[in-house]
Amino acid sequence: MTWTRRHLLDIESLSSDEILAVLDTARAFKAVGERTIKKVPALRGKTVVLLFVEPSTRTRISFELASQRLSADIINFSAEVSSLRKGETLKDTARNLEALNADFIIIRHRAAGASHFLARVLNASVINAGDGAHEHPTQALLDLFTIREKKSKIAGLNVTILGDVLYSRVARSNIWALTKLGARVTLCGPPTLVPRVFEQMGCRVTYRVEEAIAGADIINLLRIQHERQRQTMFPSLAEYADLFGLNKDRLARAKPDVTIMHPGPINRGVEIDSDVADGDRSVILEQVTNGLAVRMAVLFLVNGGIIPQEAPGNS
Amino acid sequence: MTWTRRHLLDIESLSSDEILAVLDTARAFKAVGERTIKKVPALRGKTVVLLFVEPSTRTRISFELASQRLSADIINFSAEVSSLRKGETLKDTARNLEALNADFIIIRHRAAGASHFLARVLNASVINAGDGAHEHPTQALLDLFTIREKKSKIAGLNVTILGDVLYSRVARSNIWALTKLGARVTLCGPPTLVPRVFEQMGCRVTYRVEEAIAGADIINLLRIQHERQRQTMFPSLAEYADLFGLNKDRLARAKPDVTIMHPGPINRGVEIDSDVADGDRSVILEQVTNGLAVRMAVLFLVNGGIIPQEAPGNS
Amino acid sequence: MTWTRRHLLDIESLSSDEILAVLDTARAFKAVGERTIKKVPALRGKTVVLLFVEPSTRTRISFELASQRLSADIINFSAEVSSLRKGETLKDTARNLEALNADFIIIRHRAAGASHFLARVLNASVINAGDGAHEHPTQALLDLFTIREKKSKIAGLNVTILGDVLYSRVARSNIWALTKLGARVTLCGPPTLVPRVFEQMGCRVTYRVEEAIAGADIINLLRIQHERQRQTMFPSLAEYADLFGLNKDRLARAKPDVTIMHPGPINRGVEIDSDVADGDRSVILEQVTNGLAVRMAVLFLVNGGIIPQEAPGNS
Repeated sequence: MTWTRRHLLDIESLSSDEILAVLDTARAFKAVGERTIKKVPALRGKTVVLLFVEPSTRTRISFELASQRLSADIINFSAEVSSLRKGETLKDTARNLEALNADFIIIRHRAAGASHFLARVLNASVINAGDGAHEHPTQALLDLFTIREKKSKIAGLNVTILGDVLYSRVARSNIWALTKLGARVTLCGPPTLVPRVFEQMGCRVTYRVEEAIAGADIINLLRIQHERQRQTMFPSLAEYADLFGLNKDRLARAKPDVTIMHPGPINRGVEIDSDVADGDRSVILEQVTNGLAVRMAVLFLVNGGIIPQEAPGNS
Repeated sequence: MTWTRRHLLDIESLSSDEILAVLDTARAFKAVGERTIKKVPALRGKTVVLLFVEPSTRTRISFELASQRLSADIINFSAEVSSLRKGETLKDTARNLEALNADFIIIRHRAAGASHFLARVLNASVINAGDGAHEHPTQALLDLFTIREKKSKIAGLNVTILGDVLYSRVARSNIWALTKLGARVTLCGPPTLVPRVFEQMGCRVTYRVEEAIAGADIINLLRIQHERQRQTMFPSLAEYADLFGLNKDRLARAKPDVTIMHPGPINRGVEIDSDVADGDRSVILEQVTNGLAVRMAVLFLVNGGIIPQEAPGNS
Repeated sequence: MTWTRRHLLDIESLSSDEILAVLDTARAFKAVGERTIKKVPALRGKTVVLLFVEPSTRTRISFELASQRLSADIINFSAEVSSLRKGETLKDTARNLEALNADFIIIRHRAAGASHFLARVLNASVINAGDGAHEHPTQALLDLFTIREKKSKIAGLNVTILGDVLYSRVARSNIWALTKLGARVTLCGPPTLVPRVFEQMGCRVTYRVEEAIAGADIINLLRIQHERQRQTMFPSLAEYADLFGLNKDRLARAKPDVTIMHPGPINRGVEIDSDVADGDRSVILEQVTNGLAVRMAVLFLVNGGIIPQEAPGNS
């Protein structure tokens, strides 16, 4: 296939072929990260703006390194110390950045749809790095990349997403991506955080954690997001850990080759115990490594790059 | 002519030939921004320090991108998290930065004269990115670049500067530049913000906005700077908009080919209405693009670059 | 000798040959800083993470420039706006950074031993940029580099360290380095800040400033660190200046060729008077320049670089 999109705004509108195209391209870029000189000239002389209106060190650093390794020039624009503070609108801020010949705007924003809005008003390529509780497409792509790397396939797998699904853009993007590629998705967590309405996205919903764990090929744990919950959705962190936290006992009832994932940063002792997080079924750190490769692939493709058959040449 | 200055501290001390030299050089660098690879090697291996004691995202990013596109290494030094906070003097901070072999110090500071002070105590090239209410020379240069691009000349034009002139370094630098190049400058705004003393700089001062608009080839709107006014100079933003804001009705009484400028960030509905800001006479975003080219030109010239006859070669 | 360490964590564990290897390598890199193109390709395609959990503009900028001049890619990770804030542990943060293929982690942290801890859990090279009141090895190395440059030797010199020794990692690293290379170290300051226990490190301790100054070849002044003292250790800054501050009168009783050092930022009028700080015996700004060269040398060596016989080739 040929990649034709100039933006990456969500998973919902991608075809399964497009998702696979990103994964194939990311495989080539992962090899770049293992070289001594981790750099290719694909975006030399291009300008990437990291417009992080909602702060996020991890995702910002991953995109920043991805841009550096593609040899782009980078501008960090964080909301705290900016003209957005002086009352400028997001549209004006973005158009000003574009007027500086920015080629890529990577945006994280509290409002769902912020990246779609920018894509309509800008000529630059827009990449969604998380918009409210809506989508976080590169996280889903790196999760799928990791799953395919571990299981050599995605179709037919049983994937359980466990935790705060309601407020999670990671969950939404994962559900879209997994169902498009033929995985069976089970959602589990406290009823207040996993409403039945998600069944309409093609998922199974269960509130019994044992049921969610048994038979799962993949368990993807979500971070308990204190900061995004406007009211208390469960009595306490201790009770959450007790009822839904993944610990050694619960893991013993899962398939022996289950893969444990988490988008990070992890709350040790809350949604995951340390012996599980650091155990041999956990691929949490590999997800971080793969995230860099996936983000390089996305930047490369929206820039008009050709899906590579092998690792890109050195710069 | 040959450029001989090592610093760019103000417009007041520049000759009209020097101003034109920057504009000519900027024209060549504007072409660089339109290429696929927006980069030239002119400052490779040189170090640019962005010493922004007074915060400013827009101007900082413009200088940072200008430095990147000239292939310089860049150090961001902001006052919030620095040794200036520990009581170090500006002189000591700057001499320490110079001791790191900094080649360029680009300074924004609340105190008028801060860049002149640094130029006296340092060997590095100093560029004034705004000092108190004194001068903001690169803003004036980008404004003149934009005017010349639109009107093919500067001499003989009627330029109206409308708004908070008293506290505006943009106004001061523009007045110097425009009068040196033969434009006629009219200042307008509330009497508290446009004192008659500006007539001594060769300007016409009027408090009747209709008079200021009629016959103007250029209307340069100034941002209402709440942060820099120590006392309230006018009753309310709504009253300011009512009396001096540029709206469709007022614009209808201007020359049909009037050009509308604003240094940004704009206060929509205060000094400018959205239909004017986004209308076809507005060049506000082109000013941003031109600012980058002008700042590349300034860095290039103070580094000893030769005024180019055409676009600089690619890196 | 051959350099074999992958980390630089402290001075205590270095041999005198290793210290000299850094100084020899730094001499070659100092020459790079004097060129027009201050850049070598030694770390091209490598990633340096500046993990400054305790803020420090000066040291951060010195390491950042050192990395840039070696052509590395750089990620700034400061604690204020990071996942460390969300309760992530230092170990998790560091392992996440390593998962992004970081080659070097340069860490400043409030806790003594933080860099040793990271070196045990990471594969990346770890460089200690200051850990609590424990060590600040690159500061000691740049101090020794400066001393050797001024005096052409270190063995046999009388070096006085004057000030807040108790809370000073600079003092500890200097004491280790100086005694390993055969200098005689005298410590002086208020008794609350210079406990007798330092005699066990091979130093002379005196509370009479005249005695500390007389006969010294080098006087290394320490900054009065208000922020790190949990209780007031001396009555007032004025009294400290009166009793221990280095002024013209005290300097008159020192050897005519004494060299005055200070790690910066200086408190003018407290531990040092302006006429001494800016006088011809002061090498305070040369220390800054040398710090850059020493940090380039350290990065180069832990990366497996060969101790050069002359200046490294241009990139």
